[in-house]
Amino acid sequence: MSDDGRRIVVVDQRRLPHEHIRMELATVDDAIFAIQEMVVRGAPLIGVTGACAMALAALAAPAGDMGREQLKREAARLAAARPTAVNLAWAVARVLQAATATADPVQRVARAQAEAAAVIAEEVENGRRIGAHGLPIIEAVAAARGGRTVNILTHCNAGWLACVEHGTATAPIYAACDRGLDVHVWVDETRPLNQGARLTAWELAERGVRHTVITDNAGGHLMQHGQVDLVIVGADRTTAAGDVANKIGTYLKALAARDNNVPFYVALPSSTFDWGLSDGVAGIPIEERDPEEVRWVQGWDGERRARVRICPEKSPAANFAFDVTPARLVTGLITERGICNATAEDIRRLFPEKKSVTC
Amino acid sequence: MSDDGRRIVVVDQRRLPHEHIRMELATVDDAIFAIQEMVVRGAPLIGVTGACAMALAALAAPAGDMGREQLKREAARLAAARPTAVNLAWAVARVLQAATATADPVQRVARAQAEAAAVIAEEVENGRRIGAHGLPIIEAVAAARGGRTVNILTHCNAGWLACVEHGTATAPIYAACDRGLDVHVWVDETRPLNQGARLTAWELAERGVRHTVITDNAGGHLMQHGQVDLVIVGADRTTAAGDVANKIGTYLKALAARDNNVPFYVALPSSTFDWGLSDGVAGIPIEERDPEEVRWVQGWDGERRARVRICPEKSPAANFAFDVTPARLVTGLITERGICNATAEDIRRLFPEKKSVTC
Repeated sequence: MSDDGRRIVVVDQRRLPHEHIRMELATVDDAIFAIQEMVVRGAPLIGVTGACAMALAALAAPAGDMGREQLKREAARLAAARPTAVNLAWAVARVLQAATATADPVQRVARAQAEAAAVIAEEVENGRRIGAHGLPIIEAVAAARGGRTVNILTHCNAGWLACVEHGTATAPIYAACDRGLDVHVWVDETRPLNQGARLTAWELAERGVRHTVITDNAGGHLMQHGQVDLVIVGADRTTAAGDVANKIGTYLKALAARDNNVPFYVALPSSTFDWGLSDGVAGIPIEERDPEEVRWVQGWDGERRARVRICPEKSPAANFAFDVTPARLVTGLITERGICNATAEDIRRLFPEKKSVTC
Repeated sequence: MSDDGRRIVVVDQRRLPHEHIRMELATVDDAIFAIQEMVVRGAPLIGVTGACAMALAALAAPAGDMGREQLKREAARLAAARPTAVNLAWAVARVLQAATATADPVQRVARAQAEAAAVIAEEVENGRRIGAHGLPIIEAVAAARGGRTVNILTHCNAGWLACVEHGTATAPIYAACDRGLDVHVWVDETRPLNQGARLTAWELAERGVRHTVITDNAGGHLMQHGQVDLVIVGADRTTAAGDVANKIGTYLKALAARDNNVPFYVALPSSTFDWGLSDGVAGIPIEERDPEEVRWVQGWDGERRARVRICPEKSPAANFAFDVTPARLVTGLITERGICNATAEDIRRLFPEKKSVTC
């Protein structure tokens, strides 16, 4: 948030890594645009943006019941901006509840801003803890390899760009690099929007982490030939039984990891859990986006941002944004409270207060 | 070949679907360039091009032993142009053997041209037969679905563009469409060079086959949700035990097909078999190509062919061109002699004359 609490200041991630441009969001409509168009993206970051947008909504709401109803409508609009990640609805609901606990408009704004700030602070701290809990996994691989490079594959961007700071999947990687471990990251380009090639490669380069961009097709081959020691990805929604919705293509990497005995970890803050859902393949709504995102590829033509169509003019395309990796393919979940198996029982062990609402 | 037998006339597949431009190859060096740069690509087509290039080599070779030695050197250069597909070495060796059976230069040219023509005719006939043998698979799915659309997923291009006519993976699809079956094809874009989005989509559109372009990441999700009835891909090299090298990413689709009980077929002319090899993952050499093919995406900017860089300027990339799908994931091989299981025993049943040279 800006100092006066009237604008959300974000980096326009559509333009990275080619251009680094800030954008200011002054209204709920601005925030919905930014979330839908992926100016901001990544489960924790769209949650944070939704929380801050509710603080903007509180500024604009009249006193009393009319204001309360207006806030509820704005919350519903925000939560519907993207359907798959559950953080957005969770964060928006938190700020709505805090704000509507009072009818006084000044108090309401103060409470909304405080709750949004709490969401941000918690997600930053979650990232730090995920890094601390995930670090021993990488240390163990490094020890087993006798100090040789640890090769980690990741898909999409679950870095600090997706999470304010630290990131989720990248948090253990950054922690390992801070400890001086020799880490190399295989970066899936992550078609159609190339969050891997554009964003993960960029933030790893900024932090000086050795990395190589590969096509989404390449991970299975690398695993067959012992070139991947570990897979770590993020999550957009995780069921109470451990099924994980993440960027489309994650499931294929999980299958390859299982086929080659490569550990497959999912790093996530608990805001990603959907405690009311068990079967992810049947129950998690998968966003379908504009097919033009598949037909055209964005990039840098040497002088400016540009795009090229990669298929015949009239060939149609389909654009599914996420897929679901069944819990049976997940080695472990790295959360802010520690690591657990992707099973209902072990998830409840870490989050016992959620027991009552699970399946 | 041109009428005078002095040039190989090809379509420059690097430019499709945006431009349709013919190229003439007049020397062995021209042919090596065309094969390496993928002006021509696809296992059967690079075999045919290699065979025709040997006919050009025969034209340029002096009489007697000196000519024979020259032809051997040209054959070795051609066979080394691309390492993974075995058709190239096979076709070149066939024409070399025919040509060097005589020391007379005129006879040599005639024999080389006749053998190259035979290779072409056989590969065309192989495609037709693969279509005829594969058709009943699609007919059975259509019958089981009570006439509802049969959804087939394919990866890369194993169409007539890769094979002179019919294609391999597409041959049963074209045969099914000719029979009036309702077929829809999911076309994997096939990064990095997008042979699916560029070539398969184009040739399906030309033939009026309904299709949808998807990212390479999407197939697993579609299979989880019952949207794929059948996978058919081509092959660049198949071991005597049924392991299949094909375009990078094929292995990931085979894993997803197995996980979702979707039949996974490989269509191939027997020229694709490497009868001396059993373990494909260990034994098939996987070509590594220029990483710039990953860092830049080619397409059409609305006015001309253009390319955009999709990652930070300094981020390195790796470019593995093929992967190996283990035989255990293959439902069946569709060959010109019929369908067999991907096992050494069943492959030998169809090709008994090859018995002696298998593992």
